[in-house]
Amino acid sequence: MKILKYAASAFFVGVIAIFSPAQADPEFAVAVARVYHKENGARIIREFADLLSLPNDAADTANINSNAAAIAAQFADRGFRMELLRHGNAPPLIYGRRDVRGAKRTIAIYVHYDGQPTEAANWTHPPFQPTLYSGPINNGGRQLAMPADGASINYDWRLYARSASDDKAPIAALLAALDALETVSLELSSNIVLVFDGEEERGSANLDDYLLKHRNKFTDVDLWLFCDGPTHQSGRPQLVFGVRGVTGMDVTVYGPDRGLHSGHYGNWAPGPGWRLSRLLASMKDNNDRVLIDGFYASGDKLDVGDYAAIAEMPDVDEVLRVEFGLAATEADNAPLAERIMLPALNLKGLKSAEVGDNARNIIPPSATASIGLRLVKGNDPQAMLDLVEAHIRKQGYHIVREDPDAGTRNTYPLIAKITREGGYRAVRTPLDAPGIGDLVAALRVAAGENLVLNPGLGGTLPLYIFEDISNAPIVILPIANFDNNQHAADENIRLGNLFYGIEAYAAVLTME
Amino acid sequence: MKILKYAASAFFVGVIAIFSPAQADPEFAVAVARVYHKENGARIIREFADLLSLPNDAADTANINSNAAAIAAQFADRGFRMELLRHGNAPPLIYGRRDVRGAKRTIAIYVHYDGQPTEAANWTHPPFQPTLYSGPINNGGRQLAMPADGASINYDWRLYARSASDDKAPIAALLAALDALETVSLELSSNIVLVFDGEEERGSANLDDYLLKHRNKFTDVDLWLFCDGPTHQSGRPQLVFGVRGVTGMDVTVYGPDRGLHSGHYGNWAPGPGWRLSRLLASMKDNNDRVLIDGFYASGDKLDVGDYAAIAEMPDVDEVLRVEFGLAATEADNAPLAERIMLPALNLKGLKSAEVGDNARNIIPPSATASIGLRLVKGNDPQAMLDLVEAHIRKQGYHIVREDPDAGTRNTYPLIAKITREGGYRAVRTPLDAPGIGDLVAALRVAAGENLVLNPGLGGTLPLYIFEDISNAPIVILPIANFDNNQHAADENIRLGNLFYGIEAYAAVLTME
Repeated sequence: MKILKYAASAFFVGVIAIFSPAQADPEFAVAVARVYHKENGARIIREFADLLSLPNDAADTANINSNAAAIAAQFADRGFRMELLRHGNAPPLIYGRRDVRGAKRTIAIYVHYDGQPTEAANWTHPPFQPTLYSGPINNGGRQLAMPADGASINYDWRLYARSASDDKAPIAALLAALDALETVSLELSSNIVLVFDGEEERGSANLDDYLLKHRNKFTDVDLWLFCDGPTHQSGRPQLVFGVRGVTGMDVTVYGPDRGLHSGHYGNWAPGPGWRLSRLLASMKDNNDRVLIDGFYASGDKLDVGDYAAIAEMPDVDEVLRVEFGLAATEADNAPLAERIMLPALNLKGLKSAEVGDNARNIIPPSATASIGLRLVKGNDPQAMLDLVEAHIRKQGYHIVREDPDAGTRNTYPLIAKITREGGYRAVRTPLDAPGIGDLVAALRVAAGENLVLNPGLGGTLPLYIFEDISNAPIVILPIANFDNNQHAADENIRLGNLFYGIEAYAAVLTME
Repeated sequence: MKILKYAASAFFVGVIAIFSPAQADPEFAVAVARVYHKENGARIIREFADLLSLPNDAADTANINSNAAAIAAQFADRGFRMELLRHGNAPPLIYGRRDVRGAKRTIAIYVHYDGQPTEAANWTHPPFQPTLYSGPINNGGRQLAMPADGASINYDWRLYARSASDDKAPIAALLAALDALETVSLELSSNIVLVFDGEEERGSANLDDYLLKHRNKFTDVDLWLFCDGPTHQSGRPQLVFGVRGVTGMDVTVYGPDRGLHSGHYGNWAPGPGWRLSRLLASMKDNNDRVLIDGFYASGDKLDVGDYAAIAEMPDVDEVLRVEFGLAATEADNAPLAERIMLPALNLKGLKSAEVGDNARNIIPPSATASIGLRLVKGNDPQAMLDLVEAHIRKQGYHIVREDPDAGTRNTYPLIAKITREGGYRAVRTPLDAPGIGDLVAALRVAAGENLVLNPGLGGTLPLYIFEDISNAPIVILPIANFDNNQHAADENIRLGNLFYGIEAYAAVLTME
């Protein structure tokens, strides 16, 4: 690999610093970052542990403010003009900016500094008492003392604490990358804007208000880097170009207005469970294709480049099928990466009276389905719900928004109550959007050919909020290991992933 | 009406007693009964209240034994040879027999003397403190003192207590009928066998053991009278010729072996709710006809006499539709009485993950339907479940009895766990069975042309147990008012119904 030409020693860094131009060059920057984390790994870990020792549940106002202050101070030390934006009593949005002469662009970096609520009892060590292990706790890892300066760090070691991966790891990696470049006085190639969310794990309830109120701070952003989430299930690093949107509705259909004795009235009083089953069965064919008119019409279609990217992605399908106990998956085992690029109609839940030992011999009064939609770019959440609703109407149902009264019941044989959710649009950046080529080239220096270009995650992030205030491309750059116990007890970061993050950011900060 | 020729006075009773032959004659017997309850109504009510003041939950061993002893003593006083049959610690089965010279037949009378468990807090008066009202408590009834001898009794008065209708009313009515006939020394026309169950409300768990063990006591029974339940929904008295059987199964189908994130895996991991909906939808057509092969094959078909009886039944369908908030009922509003004569496939409940506010964005691991079957004569419960199971298999499912292990999951795309219930057979007596003509003729004296001949109840009673030990016809003779709050708080009997019971039993005891 090319970066081998830069030898890994502090002495050599000094030498190349003297002889190299202080100019953007991801290969040089990544090499510097690699030397830097090898030389300073112990200190990087200890300083990260200090940050992780601050409890960061968004609902814990005092502590979340301490986090914001500590993080802002560190970036201020590194030349950023920092502001803690305020919106009522919400956790502050950490905003920062560092401009460089002759910047090629402005890159905005999104991170969230809050963490999932913790149940300390489920943790091996207290969640805000960062603890080092030689490997996964549940797979033979031994507890280690925090390393002293100069100690050699194994990439497979793990640091355990809440937010070690999700999502303070990008903060630690970015700080270290800035410090690494500073050792050789390497200037950044782009202006950098920081947008650090303090309540992502509570649904980023105020993020849209924050961004809309301060949209003038983001007018010159050319590229949004959304730094959250894990690398690919295969363990390979990835750059992700989109997320699905989400919406949903509950549908309740009715039988008699009370539970009727199934002996006295069974075969006469219509059972709501049969009605619901028939209605749901009408929505999908045996091959899992959605039969709702227009369901596939508004979504962007994959192009040749998308199909090529999907074809190059690691094939994890068979492993996942075995892992999840599935002899077959939808649409004749069509690839997961391809299926994710279609809107999905999911059944999140069904309920009518009771089953099992709690079942009673009744014709129940109602049956409810909780339907979830995952959307692709081009699908408007409410317009998609309109299609589902039109389908239900087409099956003969009279649609209501509240439980029907006696008059309605006695007028319409088929009644469906629909309760609609709001929702998020999908966001997807074309693989050939402006600046993406340079970003991919830079990241390949850190990640090598291993880098997965993932056209889209199946999950949902509120990226549309950024789309609302900016036309710039949005991509997701995750660094955490896939098995990081995100949201659960014993969350951790594999140190190799943290170090990959330092190199990745060094590349981004100096990209062509 | 014919019975008007017997004037209603004690004096006249004395006169007709002198001049009439002491011989079976329902017209005479009903007239005597009518005079008797007019003269002695206050005492009948007070004595019934004494019986109702004994708590009679089958699980309350001391009290249920007191009930049995008290009831047995009263019938012993009236010439019955009584026995309290014992089976372990179960409530005793009260057995009694009174033989008459030249008996035309032997009639066995089934009653249950236990009552539903009570929650005293929900009652207007304590459930075992019988209280008289001038009408329904919830419809303007006023509390009345217990009447003194000679007081005139209004037929619309109600006596409130647990088991006032279900099922001590037949006991009180039968005792009064025997006393009435005794006033004129009118001999019974049939031997009478008493079979009083002490744990019907707990599922008659030992009734089959009792009857099989003592089957020799019932070898000469020519007619079983099952005295329980309410009169027709129209308020008219009825004689019922059958009950449906019952069985059922729970069916669980599977998706992934854990709840999977609906974003990451929705459209790829098969949703169990869709599978269940498709499976259930395959079982019934849009017109509510069951599509399971053979479902309608084994059941007895209605004959001309059955259709004629159904046609003569009061048409309550439209009233019930309005009452239950149904704009239409199954099979294009086909009559309830006709629908009940077909086996029914009911959906008692559905469950998969959660709906509403509790729904999560997952592909749930499983979905379960609780299916109930109501059976008609000729349907064997297990054979009917076999048909449902064969249908599920035909839809491509691999059937299991326990949750599938990983090997099974990874082998079969479609897996259904089936948990079968036991069940009761249906019982139905032909309207032209031996002795039925005489019974109907006798009851018409008490009930007039009002008497509904009901080919079958939709509900289920364990009548098959009687069928197992006897070839004699079984019919159900209910006397309680339909609005008796059976099983609920404020159970009551309308006194007109109690008095109808006295007349009906007088007719039965003296039938040709």
